[in-house]
Amino acid sequence: MKQFNLCFLGFGNVGRALARLLIAKSGELRDQYGVEFQVTGVASRRIGWLAKPQGANGSEGFKVASLLANPSLSEDALALSNIDEWLREARPDAVFETTSLNPETGQPAIDYLRAILQARAHAITANKGALVYAYRELAEVARVNHKRFLFEAAVLDSAPVFSLFRETLPAAKLRGFSGVFSSTTNVIIETMEAGRSFEEGLKTAQELGVTETDASHDIDGWDATVKVCALASVLMNIPLRPDEVVREGVRGLTHKQVQAARAEGKPFKLVARAKSAGDGKIVATVRPEQIAASDPLGNVRGTSLAIHFELDMMPGLTITSHRPNLQSTAYGLLADFINAVRT
Amino acid sequence: MKQFNLCFLGFGNVGRALARLLIAKSGELRDQYGVEFQVTGVASRRIGWLAKPQGANGSEGFKVASLLANPSLSEDALALSNIDEWLREARPDAVFETTSLNPETGQPAIDYLRAILQARAHAITANKGALVYAYRELAEVARVNHKRFLFEAAVLDSAPVFSLFRETLPAAKLRGFSGVFSSTTNVIIETMEAGRSFEEGLKTAQELGVTETDASHDIDGWDATVKVCALASVLMNIPLRPDEVVREGVRGLTHKQVQAARAEGKPFKLVARAKSAGDGKIVATVRPEQIAASDPLGNVRGTSLAIHFELDMMPGLTITSHRPNLQSTAYGLLADFINAVRT
Repeated sequence: MKQFNLCFLGFGNVGRALARLLIAKSGELRDQYGVEFQVTGVASRRIGWLAKPQGANGSEGFKVASLLANPSLSEDALALSNIDEWLREARPDAVFETTSLNPETGQPAIDYLRAILQARAHAITANKGALVYAYRELAEVARVNHKRFLFEAAVLDSAPVFSLFRETLPAAKLRGFSGVFSSTTNVIIETMEAGRSFEEGLKTAQELGVTETDASHDIDGWDATVKVCALASVLMNIPLRPDEVVREGVRGLTHKQVQAARAEGKPFKLVARAKSAGDGKIVATVRPEQIAASDPLGNVRGTSLAIHFELDMMPGLTITSHRPNLQSTAYGLLADFINAVRT
Repeated sequence: MKQFNLCFLGFGNVGRALARLLIAKSGELRDQYGVEFQVTGVASRRIGWLAKPQGANGSEGFKVASLLANPSLSEDALALSNIDEWLREARPDAVFETTSLNPETGQPAIDYLRAILQARAHAITANKGALVYAYRELAEVARVNHKRFLFEAAVLDSAPVFSLFRETLPAAKLRGFSGVFSSTTNVIIETMEAGRSFEEGLKTAQELGVTETDASHDIDGWDATVKVCALASVLMNIPLRPDEVVREGVRGLTHKQVQAARAEGKPFKLVARAKSAGDGKIVATVRPEQIAASDPLGNVRGTSLAIHFELDMMPGLTITSHRPNLQSTAYGLLADFINAVRT
């Protein structure tokens, strides 16, 4: 049996779902993987940098159930003033980084992830921005420190994408990919197909909890663009910046267009595409496209997401994640943790 | 750099495609994985048990290109009389087992795979029968001999299914799955939808090379049934025998039924399903079902195959392999080999 100190950096919806999942799966972690854990640090904008070092005054870290009830009531925790102090006191073996995304810079997540790896902890993130702006650097920091930098939850919630290539498709070359990466735009378009307004669609998506805090990230295709860049950077090993992606959101779609497309059996979806253009170059687009039902992306509706890969070794491989939920996203982080520590 | 002795047991279409792939990917194997190889044994019903031990008389094993041209012309090879002698002379590190399937017993593949593992070689097979009738035993023989028993090509050609669960979905529980596992029945039904005959459909499938030698294996749902049993045995760890599967093939479908279903937007497919029923029991069926376009299996047509998983951690995850070809199947075997030997 191995003991691991775990820390949460960011403790919003995803962090909390992960905390619940760690409790629910603690039996399997112990029995199948020989893994036991304590939570020795929690940090967020609201509660600051809190640590309960394991062993100090007989402490066994935070009680996860109390954390979930009210993290700011952890009165006997050390309140620290920055990530370096926090890491020093909490001594994590792995940190789950789920702070909110800055799609223009990837910060402060990049600085956090670097500090985590340099403190010799596995860095597990749901943050796609860090992949776009610093994948190569962080992968190198991880290598030097003999720790893992993992990010399965960053792009397609829990659906295995990065681990798929890393573990199950050795020596296969990715020529290009396409995908539907945005539930919000799916829901907006489908609401308009049914004759209701763009705003009603957006409201529905927001109520489903699938929309970014700033909804224009979804609507204008920024979210999908950042995902294309993250995927290209990691899977094709070619850094791709958001401003290199030809991007068009769904604001320009009219009811007439959307309904005509639906009637034709080729409804609009916001589709992301990337293709190797030789010479280490990638051509990438994010824009509304009409997709036939027989297309690999043809049955992706509502909050479902999908990615289609073109490989030298197979004509096409599609992964579709149907109606992923918060627990699914949290599972992506848990799977990364298990893969980082299992032998 | 590590040197591996490889052997082919079975040298039909899949074995030959793998030989071509090993040549094509030898650069990547060397550069990315530090792997070099010699082929020291080839065996099939037609050519017998041939070996060219590495090192003997300065031999570097078989020339793969000559093997492909005409394996029976390997005149300076040792001609042996059974698998034990062959393994003793060829000294394989890994054997690719692609002999033809006996869906009633899984033999002789099971005896071959056992002998391979006991000779301390990785056993890599495309043979689903061995999974149905001997998965637990062969997994145990592999464990005792510290070798890998791998079979990614056995069910869904190259699409990662077994490695997906082994590597990318730790601690996730499979509740059930459904799938379209038979190209032949897809093609037959689609031909009938277009107003042509069952026999024309079968002929088309045979010309595409997707049909078993005995076409009734496909038509009567035996092939899909054996795949359901293989998947349940490995992924749900519950042995399931073909006679426990409620099975109905596509012979009973009339033109009228098939065309009406298509017109309704819910065409027939031969669908395989398995579901945990508690108490270590599985309920499984293989039969024609009407599938809507919006269904996870809704866009699987022609020679494409798909499997849809229901997991405790995600509502639904679908893997679709579009128009896999011989090279794709061979890639499943190559991926297993790389996963067996990479560190």
